[in-house]
Amino acid sequence: TTSIRATLFPGDGIGPEIAESVKKVFKEADVHIDWDEHYVGTEIDPRTQSFLTWESLESVRRNKIGLKGPMATPIGKGHRSLNLTLRKELNLYANVRPCYSLPGYKTRYDNVDLVTIRENTEGEYSGLEHQVVRGVVESLKIITRQASLRVAEYAFHYAKAHGRERVSAIHKANIMQKTDGLFLKCCREVAEKYPEIKYEEVVIDNCCMMLVKNPALFDVLVMPNLYGDIISDLCAGLIGGLGLTPSCNIGEGGIALAEAVHGSAPDIAGKNMANPTALLLSAVTMLRHLELHDKADRIQDAILKTIAEGKYRTADLGGSSTTTDFTQAICDHL
Amino acid sequence: TTSIRATLFPGDGIGPEIAESVKKVFKEADVHIDWDEHYVGTEIDPRTQSFLTWESLESVRRNKIGLKGPMATPIGKGHRSLNLTLRKELNLYANVRPCYSLPGYKTRYDNVDLVTIRENTEGEYSGLEHQVVRGVVESLKIITRQASLRVAEYAFHYAKAHGRERVSAIHKANIMQKTDGLFLKCCREVAEKYPEIKYEEVVIDNCCMMLVKNPALFDVLVMPNLYGDIISDLCAGLIGGLGLTPSCNIGEGGIALAEAVHGSAPDIAGKNMANPTALLLSAVTMLRHLELHDKADRIQDAILKTIAEGKYRTADLGGSSTTTDFTQAICDHL
Ligand SMILES: CC(C)[C@H](C(=O)O)[C@@H](O)C(=O)O
Ligand SMILES: CC(C)[C@H](C(=O)O)[C@@H](O)C(=O)O
Repeated sequence: TTSIRATLFPGDGIGPEIAESVKKVFKEADVHIDWDEHYVGTEIDPRTQSFLTWESLESVRRNKIGLKGPMATPIGKGHRSLNLTLRKELNLYANVRPCYSLPGYKTRYDNVDLVTIRENTEGEYSGLEHQVVRGVVESLKIITRQASLRVAEYAFHYAKAHGRERVSAIHKANIMQKTDGLFLKCCREVAEKYPEIKYEEVVIDNCCMMLVKNPALFDVLVMPNLYGDIISDLCAGLIGGLGLTPSCNIGEGGIALAEAVHGSAPDIAGKNMANPTALLLSAVTMLRHLELHDKADRIQDAILKTIAEGKYRTADLGGSSTTTDFTQAICDHL
Repeated sequence: TTSIRATLFPGDGIGPEIAESVKKVFKEADVHIDWDEHYVGTEIDPRTQSFLTWESLESVRRNKIGLKGPMATPIGKGHRSLNLTLRKELNLYANVRPCYSLPGYKTRYDNVDLVTIRENTEGEYSGLEHQVVRGVVESLKIITRQASLRVAEYAFHYAKAHGRERVSAIHKANIMQKTDGLFLKCCREVAEKYPEIKYEEVVIDNCCMMLVKNPALFDVLVMPNLYGDIISDLCAGLIGGLGLTPSCNIGEGGIALAEAVHGSAPDIAGKNMANPTALLLSAVTMLRHLELHDKADRIQDAILKTIAEGKYRTADLGGSSTTTDFTQAICDHL
């Protein structure tokens, strides 16, 4: 079996430890990845004085597939979040987050099974802000036909490929008639090309109310940047938090950069206490992107079984297992 | 006892029926209100051809206190929501929504007791939108020092007057550094004048996650317009929906316009099936604004007892009571 070359950015804080987990589980599952590892994070490289090197970006562009751990935002003025910088530099236009109730890990909800697809490049994240006069400031939300069509296409393509039934476009077009209106118009155009997928439009405030009342009402959700930021975190909360939810960023030319979206947890870094679940499940989405569904299923099952069993759980889930013991338990389930 | 003159806009659909409930319960509780009733809604007055007359607005300005039922948005191009028009015309700068678990009405949460305070005049609701070039549109979010200080002042004033401990400012200043940054700066300035009230800042995505995981973490929340729209609906969802949550709009010069924020439910209008709870609880916030706390407590207790008892419940809460029977049950508890 030839191995696949994939970029790995372990990131800051607990990043390296949870990246170790992924390597170990993949090895155990006979998934041969040749990890092209680069450091991207807040510790400045003394030689390059850089947070993010050209080589790191090139690695993702070349391999077209990668996995990233948490990265803290460099402290001090004028630094933009590294997460945002990667999205921008690599043109990662869609952020995809499958979110489902984990059997055996009890929250108030046991019926979550949805996927949020977030436009990841524009909208409220344009970075265009001005002080108009003293005490009056404005931010520009930019919506383009091109980016809206692109993310809508991805959402319907995803729904079809994953056997999903419905796509809901989330918006506030009753207020932002031009921007969110254009977003909806693009979604409708794409929806027409997928008659087998149901399509609906839901206003964001109502969507949030419906999600907390009955998340089973939703299947695939597609939305502009900020709504995606909000709703994907809300959904993560329904099933237990960001420590349990995978995420994958899709870029032009078939690039996919999977990532754990939780923080770098500097307080527990290096203590063998971190929960690798989000990064592991993100690595699984990476395998799915490579169409290695058998391997993906096998690893995902082992992760879910370990959590369901409840014998090995890290501190964030109320247990006292180490990262290595939890990882070993997953390997034992493979 | 002299009676208080208050404006009443029964509104559309089920509005008139639930307004009747309020009148009846107030009378039974010996609250003497001289209702200055005006029709504002989607049915055009054949003489004036107007949805909203000058007299209706003047009534609120003169009485400084009012209650409104649901109003549908007039159909056809170029009509703005009547709710928004009222906010704008009356300069209703803060929308206040107390949200608490109702004893006896079971949802997934039993520990909600918070108040959302939403800036109600600017932000993402500026209405300023342009097509820049074909396929590229922008919306302007406007944040001003004046409106931010005003709503922050109201939030801290409210927290103090209601014996609340903490105010959380909700924002996305890591992305919208200038607009949400200014909003936070204003909140901080006001917080300094209220050393007895704790102050914290929470990013909106994280706030939504925390709310669905453990709403008891929050007390009073203050935020820009769109975040308030989203979070107040999310919170309503936690305790059962918009049919159960009161809302009150605060304007300059001591104006307060309480309102039920649910829809006009045309499908059940006139059928004696509507749930008057949201309008009744909104009317209670009106009494609190008038500092009639004894009366407010008495009516609120009777409403909560009726719901807790569970004998009389309208269809939306899974029961089969009529509006009049439910209202009578509340009167019997007075
Ligand atoms: C860290 C922050 C800038 C980022 C965002 O707002 O997109 C985060 O919340 C996310 O969802 O990845
Ligand atoms: C009807 C709509 C324009 C309104 C809003 O967005 O403010 C509603 O959602 C609300 O919260 O009162």
